[in-house]
Amino acid sequence: MAVTLHVCITCRVHRAVGEGESCAGARLHDAARHSAPEGVVVAPVTCLSACSRGCAVALAGPGRWTYVYGGIAPETDLGPLLEGAALYAGSADGIVPWRDRPELFRRNVIARMPPREF
Amino acid sequence: MAVTLHVCITCRVHRAVGEGESCAGARLHDAARHSAPEGVVVAPVTCLSACSRGCAVALAGPGRWTYVYGGIAPETDLGPLLEGAALYAGSADGIVPWRDRPELFRRNVIARMPPREF
Repeated sequence: MAVTLHVCITCRVHRAVGEGESCAGARLHDAARHSAPEGVVVAPVTCLSACSRGCAVALAGPGRWTYVYGGIAPETDLGPLLEGAALYAGSADGIVPWRDRPELFRRNVIARMPPREF
Repeated sequence: MAVTLHVCITCRVHRAVGEGESCAGARLHDAARHSAPEGVVVAPVTCLSACSRGCAVALAGPGRWTYVYGGIAPETDLGPLLEGAALYAGSADGIVPWRDRPELFRRNVIARMPPREF
């Protein structure tokens, strides 16, 4: 079963958004859903409550630890974000060995949560 | 069905732990499990990856948003933590109205994640 990459579409990264502009989170979501690797479903979420560390995303999947990452730049971090999401999708429990994680994930983890038992 | 209060039992809150001492996270877990309100199961977790903001906990439950909170002091914050957990348990979707949330939860949210669809 596919894993989900939740992308916060309300992240403004402390910047005002001009009329007709998209906020950074919405831009990241657009870019990610057009390039999602196999086994990764990209889903928008309205606020991950990690506003001080946007852009923020969460990776979740059945039987897996959930991970929240922040500080993701839509313009430069899409590659490592999707690489990390693909590795997560390929893992049994959501835990990708440290040596294999993109530098983006090593630096920018905000929190993780254990798999649900229900 | 009960909700789960995951308490990180490895949080040291930037302090060395002396021989025979418990770290702050383990003390918080011990205190919480002895006073858990109805409908709240307290479960230990080995690292929520929120080390810079310990003590850290996560509230999760079926059909509910998951919330991660940090900066919780075992000696002084047990009351509002369990009060907030009880309110979470009594909510339909994990979202407690802002005006009802303990100040501890208003100040110290680290992240939240949407309910799982799987």
